[in-house]
Amino acid sequence: MGRVFKLRNVKFSAVSSGIKKEGLDLGLVYFQEPVSFLALYTTNRVKAAHIHYMKRLEEKKVRALLVNSGCANAATGKEGVKDLEKLAKIIGEQMSVSPDDVLFASTGVIGKRLPVDKIIRSFPELLKRSNSSGVEDFAKAIMTTDSYHKISTGSFKGEKNYVLIGVAKGAGMINPKFGTMLCFLFTDFPARKDKIRKAFKTAIRESFEKITVDAETSTNDTVVLFFPEGDVDQKGYEGFVRTLNSVTKELALLIVRDGEGATKVIHIKVKGARTKKEAEEVARRIARSNLVKTAFFGSDPNWGRIIAAVGDTNVRVAPHKIEIIIQGERIVSGGEEVIFDEATLKKRLETRNIDVEINLNEGKGCFDIYTTDLTYEYIKINASYRT
Amino acid sequence: MGRVFKLRNVKFSAVSSGIKKEGLDLGLVYFQEPVSFLALYTTNRVKAAHIHYMKRLEEKKVRALLVNSGCANAATGKEGVKDLEKLAKIIGEQMSVSPDDVLFASTGVIGKRLPVDKIIRSFPELLKRSNSSGVEDFAKAIMTTDSYHKISTGSFKGEKNYVLIGVAKGAGMINPKFGTMLCFLFTDFPARKDKIRKAFKTAIRESFEKITVDAETSTNDTVVLFFPEGDVDQKGYEGFVRTLNSVTKELALLIVRDGEGATKVIHIKVKGARTKKEAEEVARRIARSNLVKTAFFGSDPNWGRIIAAVGDTNVRVAPHKIEIIIQGERIVSGGEEVIFDEATLKKRLETRNIDVEINLNEGKGCFDIYTTDLTYEYIKINASYRT
Repeated sequence: MGRVFKLRNVKFSAVSSGIKKEGLDLGLVYFQEPVSFLALYTTNRVKAAHIHYMKRLEEKKVRALLVNSGCANAATGKEGVKDLEKLAKIIGEQMSVSPDDVLFASTGVIGKRLPVDKIIRSFPELLKRSNSSGVEDFAKAIMTTDSYHKISTGSFKGEKNYVLIGVAKGAGMINPKFGTMLCFLFTDFPARKDKIRKAFKTAIRESFEKITVDAETSTNDTVVLFFPEGDVDQKGYEGFVRTLNSVTKELALLIVRDGEGATKVIHIKVKGARTKKEAEEVARRIARSNLVKTAFFGSDPNWGRIIAAVGDTNVRVAPHKIEIIIQGERIVSGGEEVIFDEATLKKRLETRNIDVEINLNEGKGCFDIYTTDLTYEYIKINASYRT
Repeated sequence: MGRVFKLRNVKFSAVSSGIKKEGLDLGLVYFQEPVSFLALYTTNRVKAAHIHYMKRLEEKKVRALLVNSGCANAATGKEGVKDLEKLAKIIGEQMSVSPDDVLFASTGVIGKRLPVDKIIRSFPELLKRSNSSGVEDFAKAIMTTDSYHKISTGSFKGEKNYVLIGVAKGAGMINPKFGTMLCFLFTDFPARKDKIRKAFKTAIRESFEKITVDAETSTNDTVVLFFPEGDVDQKGYEGFVRTLNSVTKELALLIVRDGEGATKVIHIKVKGARTKKEAEEVARRIARSNLVKTAFFGSDPNWGRIIAAVGDTNVRVAPHKIEIIIQGERIVSGGEEVIFDEATLKKRLETRNIDVEINLNEGKGCFDIYTTDLTYEYIKINASYRT
C-alpha cells in the first residue's frame, strides 16, 4: 500500500452503531469545503436506495457522505429512500449543513430497511471522532465479507502538490459493470466535471470493470470521486489522470485478491479476437466459469474447460485456430494440445497469481480481466452469510 | 424408475477397456435391424469429434452405437475424427456391417485423443456380451462424475405395443441448450423423420433444455433417438409423444438431481414476464447465480440475492412489482419484504426439493427451469477431476 497521503480538508470517522452484530459499521466523510462529485452506479435494474437518492443531487456540491455496512438498503422501495431523507435532515442539522449537502451509500444484506434509529443515536459520536487521519477506520467501517480494508493513495504535482485518496470495499457480488460495490475517491485537485468525466470513466473501465469474483452484479455498486470545483490546474492534469488510474487499479486488484474465499487471482487475457467487444465477451465467459475457477483452485491445467468456455459464447471462433498459454507456457496450439510437462505446470499453478492467455487468431481485438478461483471457503461464506 | 421395458431388437453391452482407471467405460448398442435416427447437438462452438462424425451420417440408417466415457474426444482436431473413421472400419468388420453403419459418442476429459488401441482390444468381448437385457451396464459405462446411472423406459399402444427406452448421463458441465451431455433413446415405434422431428425437439426443449447444474454448456451434448423407419402407426402416435415427453423429462430430472455435489433441486418458475423469452432470460440468470445456489445450500431464504439476479439481465423489470414465493410462502410483494417467519421457512428449506416462484407482474410470459445448489462437494469434484 505504501505511504498513505492525507487531505487536510477531508475528515473521516467510524463507529459501531449496531447495524452489524459487531465491528465498525458506520463511516462518515466530512468535507470542510463544499465539493463536487462524479459518480457511476451499477447497471443492475434493482438499485439501492442511496443510488436513487444520489442521482437527485448530482448537480450539487456536497459536504458529507455517510456510509453503512450490514444493510444494503436495496429492494426497500420508496420507504428506503424516505429513510435517507429523514436521516439527511437530522444529521445535516447536527453538522449545520443543508439536508441536500449529505450523500449516503450502503452495503450489506439486500431487502432489509435501514435501522434509522441506531444511526441517529450513533451520529454525535461519529461526528465528534472525525479527523483527517481517520481514513483507515472509515475503510474498515464499510467492509462486509472483506478480509482486509482497502485504501490506495497517491500524490502528484501541478501548480502545487495534490493528493488523491481512494477507499473501496467488496469481496462478493463482484462483477462491476459501472463501478464496484463501493469506492470513494477524494482529491484536492480542482476540476470541472465536464473536463474530467472522460478520465473518470476510463479509469473505472480499466480497473473495476476488469475484475469479477462471482459474476454477480450488485444492486449497490457505486464509485464516487469528490473534488473541489475550480479551473483545472493544467500543469497537474496529467499527474491527476495517472494517479486516478493507478489508485483505481490498485483498489480493483485489492478487491479481487480479497474475493470471497479466493486463494488465487487469475488474469485472463484474450487476444486475436475480431473486435475488442468479442474479446471482452470471451474473457468474461471464461472468468465466470465455475469449472475453470475450480480447476485453478486445484492447480489443474485443465485447458479443456477453458476452450469449452470459449466455445460457449455468441462469438464465432474457429476452434482449430485457438492458442492457450498458461503461466507463460504454450499448451494449446491450433486448437490441440501441445506436449508439455503437466507435473511441472501443475507445480507452477500452486501460486497466488495465474496468467492465462487465449489467442483466437482472428484479428486484433483484445481484452483482459481478473477473476478468482472458486473454493470451499466461497461456499462456506455464502451458505451462511446471514446467520 | 419403475419397470424397465426391453426392446428385442436392440442389444446392449459394456466393458472396462481401461480408458478410465476403473469401472465400465465402453458401451455398445447393436441394432438387429437398421434404424434411422434424429439427433440434437450442443450449441457450443467447440464440438466433440463424434458430433462432426455423426452429422455426416444423418441421412443414413445405422446398425451400431459405440459410446465411451473417460475421454471426450473434443478439441482433438481432424485427428479426433480420423480416430473414429479408423475405429468404424475395424469394428464394422467385426460386426459384418459397413463402417458407415456405426455411430460414436464420447464423454469425459476434453482435449485428449481417444485411446483407439484399448478400444479395439476390448471390442470382441464387448460384442460377445451384447444382449437385450444389458441396458443397465450400458448406462453405467457412459457415466463420468455421475453417482448413479440413468434409465427411463415406457410403453404405449398403437396397432401393437411399443416400447421407448432412454439412457442418459451427465452430472457436470450441464447447461444443455440443444441436448444434454449424452442421451440415447430407443424405440420400436415406426416413424418418418419429418413426422416426428417436431415432437422430438419439443420433448428436448421441455426436458434437457430446462435443467442446469453449472451453467456450463458442454462440447459433447448429444441426444439421439433411434427408431425403425416406416409409416407412422397413427393409432400409437399420441402414446409415442406422451412417452417420449415423460421419458426425457424423467431423465432430465435424474440428471439435475445427480448434479455434481448437489444436495437440492431448485425449481425456478418465472411468471408475469412480457414474453416467454424474457421469462427464460430471468429464469436462467437466477439458475446460474452462485449466490442464490449457495444460499439454498445453506437453507437461507435470502431473497435479496434472487431479486439482484432478476435485476442483472437485459430484461426491463420494475423492481416494485416483483413478487417472490418460496416453498409456497409469499415473502416478497411489491418488491419489498413481507413479514414472514424466517425460522420456519428456513426449516422448510432443509429438504431436497425447493420451489421458487418469481412473478414480474408485467405480462403473461412464463418459463421454468431446474437447477442445483452449489456445495463443498462441487468444489471437491471439480478441483480434482483429472487427478
